[in-house]
Amino acid sequence: MAKQTIRLLMPQWQGGNNPNYSFGAELLAWLAPDNDQPLIHVPVQAYDGVPLENEDGIYGRKQLLQQLEAAQHIINAHKPDRIVMFGGDCLVEQAPFAYLNERYGGELGLVWIDAHSDLVRIVGYDNGHTLPLGNLLGEGDEEFAMHVKVPLKPENVFIAGFDIPTEQDTEIIQRLGIQAAGTKELMNSTASIKDWIKQSNIKHLAIHLDLDVLDPKAFRSLLFANPEAPYDFSAAGTMPISGLLHLIKELSEEADVVGLGITEHMPWDAINLKSLLGEIPLLNI
Amino acid sequence: MAKQTIRLLMPQWQGGNNPNYSFGAELLAWLAPDNDQPLIHVPVQAYDGVPLENEDGIYGRKQLLQQLEAAQHIINAHKPDRIVMFGGDCLVEQAPFAYLNERYGGELGLVWIDAHSDLVRIVGYDNGHTLPLGNLLGEGDEEFAMHVKVPLKPENVFIAGFDIPTEQDTEIIQRLGIQAAGTKELMNSTASIKDWIKQSNIKHLAIHLDLDVLDPKAFRSLLFANPEAPYDFSAAGTMPISGLLHLIKELSEEADVVGLGITEHMPWDAINLKSLLGEIPLLNI
Repeated sequence: MAKQTIRLLMPQWQGGNNPNYSFGAELLAWLAPDNDQPLIHVPVQAYDGVPLENEDGIYGRKQLLQQLEAAQHIINAHKPDRIVMFGGDCLVEQAPFAYLNERYGGELGLVWIDAHSDLVRIVGYDNGHTLPLGNLLGEGDEEFAMHVKVPLKPENVFIAGFDIPTEQDTEIIQRLGIQAAGTKELMNSTASIKDWIKQSNIKHLAIHLDLDVLDPKAFRSLLFANPEAPYDFSAAGTMPISGLLHLIKELSEEADVVGLGITEHMPWDAINLKSLLGEIPLLNI
Repeated sequence: MAKQTIRLLMPQWQGGNNPNYSFGAELLAWLAPDNDQPLIHVPVQAYDGVPLENEDGIYGRKQLLQQLEAAQHIINAHKPDRIVMFGGDCLVEQAPFAYLNERYGGELGLVWIDAHSDLVRIVGYDNGHTLPLGNLLGEGDEEFAMHVKVPLKPENVFIAGFDIPTEQDTEIIQRLGIQAAGTKELMNSTASIKDWIKQSNIKHLAIHLDLDVLDPKAFRSLLFANPEAPYDFSAAGTMPISGLLHLIKELSEEADVVGLGITEHMPWDAINLKSLLGEIPLLNI
């Protein structure tokens, strides 16, 4: 029987506490090549002008949990073999990857392509999108982690393109024994990640792509690259687009890619142009 | 009777000899606010991998003339009171503005918001998008200008945001007596352009917006701002987005805006992301 793939569009913004993530998700889904994969919208509470509250260390905790459950319900309604997720902030990845790990007997492999580890809280920055990989491993935030029935095996996780770990990152990566390689190494050779797939006997692989792994000089539709407010609050990515594609293609040859999530698209020009068009009188009569 | 407005989507690329203009047009139309204005596609020959030929000083002359005629036919089929045009290269403006000038008895006012005059040939750069304003005035290219039944009155044209005229620009602007103001002046005060509307007794106004009038540091979806190939072959714009919106709103209060064309959208990030998504195996099964 042919494998069933669904596409989810989850314009979640609460995990980054920035309503622009919603439009980034919509544009991302619009840019994807057409095929017969159904595109299913996961309901997300739109920004209504009211600032999110910090609820026990996570802004918008209640909305995020509701939306996580909505994504779980939709996935369980379809019970697909493969899932493509268009986000939204990084936390959209929890529901599909937790499902896929169950679906494939707790043996899912996961490559986390990201300029950040998404494993641990960052002090003073209480946003849920810093935690999805932690949650998937049964760490992270207790309430979110409880929604992962079968946590991923740490040895089945590889973090790619993450160049500047914090002390907290290093602690958890070492404690759990997670594999990792930075952009420089991977652009030189993908041998380490291919060896890991073979040695871990990974058959089914999910790929998380946080677009912030890209060099913001080459790809500017990132939180980092707001033309009005240059970014200086955490490390930016350094990967070229061509190298990213090469990496994804290599992974797709080594294992059956059953999950792909693309997140954190922040298309400043399109946001600003849409806003301009929305105020031009002749376009609004 | 309510005025009828149509939106045209003309993904013409031949006038700039760059197939990316087609996608820029599609995205522009997608970003525009929804209302009940019908969106009509003007047929354009898609890039098929064959380079355009230089035909008597204009690359793709034959295709451009065919497409100009197609736009004329579509406009004449609808005979609207107002036209919104989503380009594509600047040459898409010829058909709607020539029609509107006829429609309003040869008395149409035209504000040309652009970092370039679009009046004259540029030696060594034989692309049709350097000529639309010239054609509309009965100058430009003879064969294109013949398609303008009632040329615009030069005194009814105002060039806005054009900061660095060439010698050829200065010659034709002075010879025809066209009004102009640079970005610095207009961002300080729109008095000159409002006075021109009153003194010329302009009732019906068309606005051409070449997005290249914007500062490419603030809006990077421009030919100028290719992250792979920094632009150095002609003057870039300097207008901020907020100042552009203010100008358009001021114009909309001074006259009945019956035409609006938006052109030369070159969304590099969306082009590159679409291309990446188009090659990811899981999105193409």
